[in-house]
Amino acid sequence: MEALQKEVNSVKKVIGIMSGKGGVGKSTVTVMLADSLLNHGYKVGILDADITGSSIPRLLKIEEEHLSSDQDTIKPYITEKGLKIISMSLMLDDKKQPIIWKGSVLSSVIQNIWSKANWGNLDYLLIDMPPGTSDIALTVLQQFHPNGMIMVSVPQDLVQSIVHKSIEMVHQMNIKFIGTILNLSYMTCPCCGNDFKLYEESKEFGAKQRILGDLPARRNVAELANNSGILNEETEKLISPITRIILEEVKISSLV
Amino acid sequence: MEALQKEVNSVKKVIGIMSGKGGVGKSTVTVMLADSLLNHGYKVGILDADITGSSIPRLLKIEEEHLSSDQDTIKPYITEKGLKIISMSLMLDDKKQPIIWKGSVLSSVIQNIWSKANWGNLDYLLIDMPPGTSDIALTVLQQFHPNGMIMVSVPQDLVQSIVHKSIEMVHQMNIKFIGTILNLSYMTCPCCGNDFKLYEESKEFGAKQRILGDLPARRNVAELANNSGILNEETEKLISPITRIILEEVKISSLV
Repeated sequence: MEALQKEVNSVKKVIGIMSGKGGVGKSTVTVMLADSLLNHGYKVGILDADITGSSIPRLLKIEEEHLSSDQDTIKPYITEKGLKIISMSLMLDDKKQPIIWKGSVLSSVIQNIWSKANWGNLDYLLIDMPPGTSDIALTVLQQFHPNGMIMVSVPQDLVQSIVHKSIEMVHQMNIKFIGTILNLSYMTCPCCGNDFKLYEESKEFGAKQRILGDLPARRNVAELANNSGILNEETEKLISPITRIILEEVKISSLV
Repeated sequence: MEALQKEVNSVKKVIGIMSGKGGVGKSTVTVMLADSLLNHGYKVGILDADITGSSIPRLLKIEEEHLSSDQDTIKPYITEKGLKIISMSLMLDDKKQPIIWKGSVLSSVIQNIWSKANWGNLDYLLIDMPPGTSDIALTVLQQFHPNGMIMVSVPQDLVQSIVHKSIEMVHQMNIKFIGTILNLSYMTCPCCGNDFKLYEESKEFGAKQRILGDLPARRNVAELANNSGILNEETEKLISPITRIILEEVKISSLV
């Protein structure tokens, strides 16, 4: 397996997108970052590691696609723009059925996908992690050794207290913590067009993490803007400053 | 264990609150329903089964409390109003540390809590389930045999597709599916005071589930209204029609 990995793949950097808490927009942020990195000229892949709550294929409107795989390799789906995606849910026959597997099985499956993935050349591989600090999070952090981890949170104490535990987990596993993206931070008033905050300021957790940027609550912020890309001019502007920090924190040496 | 359960406990009905997807307000809805059931005159308990992403203690502002337990029993925390709560996070010394346990361990822990819980007399025990369809969901559905399951969702296709898988899981396990509560359905405009929808109408999933009611996105909708209760007059009005459907669907025979 290791041999195959080295033979067919050249993945320069791996970045995990995590939150601990679900429903904060982790997958949305993942596809936004992926598209932004593509726009910056990098080769990008997404590994959808949220097996029981897979969202990536639906966000990219490719949920009816099927990945081709033989015994030894899994070939990613490739969008027109060149984004490569591997998701367990693109390997199932009936995508509407729940995946009722124990954590130990989920861990084996994600390891199996990891070892068989035929990514080819990638600058950045983004891993969309499931909520929680259990099996898959453990497997990804311990065995895939990401070069950095990004947290997605919302500016609410209840959520921040759970995200903070995931940051602790990352530190305990000696993985680099890049910073936190605060999603759903504000909303544009449908009447007057002014932005207003959705949550009260988080007093307890604000200072404890490096905030990479704020993103608004907006319908379809990560909707496919056209057949090939995800971001439009406005949403690219929102994510681009965050992308630049990440590029600075997890540098690809050959391009620097 | 079984003997102890029967000796010390008389729990009439068990209802699971599930979503499959995280961050939809499952714990918020759980405490709202619990308080509403108390207001209807029932004896109510909450088992917080979302071990790695525990939210109940924080919502009830009891996160600094410690549950007393000896080798054989775990005594719930009891609020002034009489709500009984058992949460793993109330048994830990350092509540800020992540719980990095494999799914098999999480399953054993929740079974252990289940068998040792000293609930006394309860009419309704609500179980706040973690996201996903893996270990804890499996254990709760297979081994605790809830009398009914409620889904919490938001009216967005991406979320609904995941919640729908959890409904399938409940059907496959032959557990009664009561219906779905659509949370974060609308928001009150901060300028004009009119309600507006946060998501576009879900075309795909609307017809496939029984909708019990809609709840708004609102700051602190489940904030402790006073030292003992959670709901104020306005929020009680929001949840009460849903409570009545649930009481009808999972009846306590001795009270009917």
